[in-house]
This record gives sequence, structure tokens and C-alpha cells, in this order.
Amino acid sequence: MSDYAGLDLGGTAIKHGVVDRTGAVLAQGATATPPGGRDAILQTLAGIVQEYCRAFTLEAVGLGTAGAVDFESGTILGHSPNIAGWGNTPVRAELHRRLRLPVAVDNDANCMALAELHAGAGQGCRSLFFLTLGTGIGSAVVNDGKLWRGAHSLGGEWGHATIVHDGRPCACGQRGHLEAYASATALVARARELAGRDDPEPADARGVFAAAESGDRAARQAVAETVAYLASGIASAVNLLDPERVILGGGMADAGDEFLNAVETQTRARVHVGLAEHLKIVPAVLGNRAGFIGAALLARTDAGAGPT
Amino acid sequence: MSDYAGLDLGGTAIKHGVVDRTGAVLAQGATATPPGGRDAILQTLAGIVQEYCRAFTLEAVGLGTAGAVDFESGTILGHSPNIAGWGNTPVRAELHRRLRLPVAVDNDANCMALAELHAGAGQGCRSLFFLTLGTGIGSAVVNDGKLWRGAHSLGGEWGHATIVHDGRPCACGQRGHLEAYASATALVARARELAGRDDPEPADARGVFAAAESGDRAARQAVAETVAYLASGIASAVNLLDPERVILGGGMADAGDEFLNAVETQTRARVHVGLAEHLKIVPAVLGNRAGFIGAALLARTDAGAGPT
Repeated sequence: MSDYAGLDLGGTAIKHGVVDRTGAVLAQGATATPPGGRDAILQTLAGIVQEYCRAFTLEAVGLGTAGAVDFESGTILGHSPNIAGWGNTPVRAELHRRLRLPVAVDNDANCMALAELHAGAGQGCRSLFFLTLGTGIGSAVVNDGKLWRGAHSLGGEWGHATIVHDGRPCACGQRGHLEAYASATALVARARELAGRDDPEPADARGVFAAAESGDRAARQAVAETVAYLASGIASAVNLLDPERVILGGGMADAGDEFLNAVETQTRARVHVGLAEHLKIVPAVLGNRAGFIGAALLARTDAGAGPT
Repeated sequence: MSDYAGLDLGGTAIKHGVVDRTGAVLAQGATATPPGGRDAILQTLAGIVQEYCRAFTLEAVGLGTAGAVDFESGTILGHSPNIAGWGNTPVRAELHRRLRLPVAVDNDANCMALAELHAGAGQGCRSLFFLTLGTGIGSAVVNDGKLWRGAHSLGGEWGHATIVHDGRPCACGQRGHLEAYASATALVARARELAGRDDPEPADARGVFAAAESGDRAARQAVAETVAYLASGIASAVNLLDPERVILGGGMADAGDEFLNAVETQTRARVHVGLAEHLKIVPAVLGNRAGFIGAALLARTDAGAGPT
């Protein structure tokens, strides 16, 4: 009865599952993202849902995907750097044609935020600011209990906010963005740079946090800088949005209490008058299930056939 | 019938007037902001309204004021640097006690944005991002046809967004904020710095723009830098909010088409994928009447007695 399939498409894996109306997970799995571009991906996504159809009565399907999405039409905008051949795909229409089920498509950060709102760290809130700190930085805004989309369904983007005017190059081609200073990628690059080493260690953000904990000076400094940049970026967004709660997701949000407490303390010191006492920064709780849970919850409220 | 008084309290002058339901101005005036602190200001504000009561049947009174305002209680938050003795004043309750009329109080940028929304450059829009470029930088967000206030009525603040992490000192005591790079004050200071002169010329932003137009190198560079910083700051906000329109108010918005076109062009080059084609930056049209018109329009919808 009234169950929903959720798909979370990333560059290496598709995480997926079935949830009920409340966001409770009834089944879940993961599948490698196929090489071969658009048709291979669409076929794999459809196959996952068809498999779930054997055990569940699905009302609708939701997809969260990397990259910018035109939510109204369910189309990927521009090129999608992490998934070859995915740009400009009319995903909603294509999946609907294959599945004959209502489909909703949004970017992955929006889906994660929706999951945390209804079934995670944002339960009971009417407004949220959500940041996911991973390879890049995704973000989403919840206002009045709903995802804030903006006038053209393109809002909620904070990873490419400028925090150092004309600063470090960002993956998007511009400079000085939060993503270039506070993503896992940026943290690892900065730790290596400070260490002055050519060897590829630490290999990932987890490695940098571990090295910092064991006293490595370069790693400690890289983490400290990342905390300060994140605090800058979060404080600016909080000044504008005044959200009930800030939720940090993605791999870096698992770095532990010391990191999160430092981010909260420094953000509190940077927000505008009156906001410090209300500031609340919490880690996401749904981990890497947030994407498909949120996609399924999106399907519950926003699924349709898309343009044909 | 159904007219509203609006008061716009600044550090040197109180601009005021009476408007009808549509925002059309029926009367207007200006009065010097009295020295002497809270009681003198409240007495002057009440006197202005009492004078209007002789000619109009007022339904309610609105006040826009410099500084941060707790909109729910109608109280000034913290200290107010530009108006001595004004901090922590429960303005709504105090004015209601003196006038026996419903009162609404908000910060001046919110009032200006409301005026532009209903009677100015934002007519017909459901969402706006408004910046006022003057001594400082004020801002406001309109969503779904209403002012965005956030969870604690403290949102909409963009002047203290970080655009250069740990950059120039800001008047608020922190560093690197948009206000420290793109306000009229910052423009004048930078032009003098680049000129390497100790004399107090140019005296104001208008003087810098005039000098730039007549070919002065330092002034031209100061204006060019200001355009770039503004574009950085506006692009970040647009990425997050995706507003229908961006409105620039305050003295610097009168600098002319060349300045505004440069800001729009550079902002367009900086916004995230998909947003460039939708970007629309326009000057405010209500000039220094926007504050009292917006305050009166706020009174129409939000006035009450305040805490007693």
C-alpha cells in the first residue's frame, strides 16, 4: 500500500530503496552506476524499480541526482561533470515512459534535506539550512515545511557562494567558492599542501581527521582552516535565512563532535546580532540513506509524468 | 479613510508621510532626528503622527528604523550605533501607548523592500532580493509576495555576509563583510586610499563616481573594485534565493546606468548554472520615500499594540 521507490544517483553508485508514507525504509540496496551514459543509466534505474515492483505496490518513484536539475520539467541542467552523458537528460519523462509510474526528480542535496526534515535531524522543524560536505558541497533550504526552490527552481545553492573574492579555483571554473575551501576535496588538498609532500597521503578527509587527531601539524592546521571557512559560509547563510536549524550532512559531518562543535562555536561568533543565541548546528542522522529516502518522499508529494 | 502613517527613522532625519491602501503618497515631510535619546525620539515620532491625525483618519502607524529589530515584539535589538540611546527600546509598545493606534516596527531595509514590492520596482513580483547601498548595506528578501523573516524574525541580512574571509574590518566589529567592500563608505575610503591622499576628497560616493567619470584613475579603480565585490555578493545571494528580481536601492543605486549595467553583467558571469538567463537587476524607484511608504504598508498588514 502506498509505498514509494527512491533512487539516489551518484558518480559511482546508485543507492535505492522503498519507503512508506512516513519515510520508514522497507527495503534498500545499492547498484554500481553503469558506464555508457544516458541510456545505460536510465535502463539501470528502471530495472531497479521494476525489481521493487515485484514485492511492493509502488505509488510513485523519486530520483535524486548529482548536478543541477530543472525541477519543474525533471531535466538535468547543463553538463553533469560527475556522470558522463547525463547532462540535459529529460529524466522525468524518460523514466515515466519506461515505468508508467509518476516520477519526481530533484538534485541530491534537496532530497537529502527533505529526508532529514521528515525522518531525520530536522523533524519538527519548519525551516532548515542543509549543507552536505563531500567531494563537493551541496545545499538546500527548507522554509515553511517545504523545500525552498526559488522563482526558477534553481535556488538553494550554497556550495558556490563566494567566501574569498577571487580566491582559490573552484571545480565549477570560478574562484573563491565555499566548495573550494571547505569540501572534503579541499580539505585533503590543503592538508597535502601544508605537509609539503608529493605523496598521495592522506588519501581522504577521514585520513586528514585521523592524522589531525594523532597530532599531525599540517592536518591540524588544514582542519582548523576548514572549520573557519565553513563558519564564515554558514554564518552568511544564517544571516540571510535565519533558519530554525542548520544540518550538516555528507562524509565530513561524521568527523565527530570536536569538529562539529568547533564549527558551531565559530559560526556563533560570526552571525549577526541576535542570531547567536538561536544558532543550532546538528549532524545529519540518515547517512547515505538520506538521498533515496528523500527522493521517495519527494515522489509522495511531487511526482508526475513530466513533459512528454 | 483607511490611511496609514509611515515613519522612517535614520541617524540624521525622520522621513514621514501618509499613504493610502495602495501605497500612494497623500502627504509627506521630514524632521531632524532629535538628540537626547529614546524619549526625545519617541516624543518626536508621536508628534509627527498626531499632526497627521488632524488631516487624516489613520488606521495604523508603521516605523522603519536603522538597526536590527525584533519584529514580533517591535523592540530594537542590541545597541543601535547610528542613533544614540535607541538600542533595546520597545518601540511598538511605547508608540502605541502614546498614540492609541496599532503600530508595526521593522528595520528600514525591510520597509524599503516592501515599498518597492507594492509600489515600486518590484511590482508584480512574488520574490525579490533587495539591497540598499548607502553608508552601510541593508537588505531584505521577499518570498511568495511577503517579507522573508526567518524563524526568529532576524533573517534577510546580507550586508554582513562574508565575501573575503578575514578581510577588511567591518563597522560591526568583524571582518570581510560585503558592507566593508561595497558600501558608499567603503567606496569613498578605497578611492582615497588608492589616491594616496590625506585630504578628505572625494567627500562622498557621488564624488567618487563623478571623479571616475572624468577619468580619475584612483576613482575608476575604486568603482571597478566595488562593482566586482558587489557582483560577488549578489551572485552568492542569487544562488541561494533564485529571486525573480534583484533591486538595488540607496544612494549608490543612483550612480547611473553604467554602474548598474556593470554590476548586472558581472553578477551574471558569477551566478551558478542556469541562473544567468533569469538574472534581472534593477534600480529602486521610490528613492528616499521608500522607507516611510514601506513602513505605512507594513502598518496596513501587521500593526498591533505590541507587548505591554
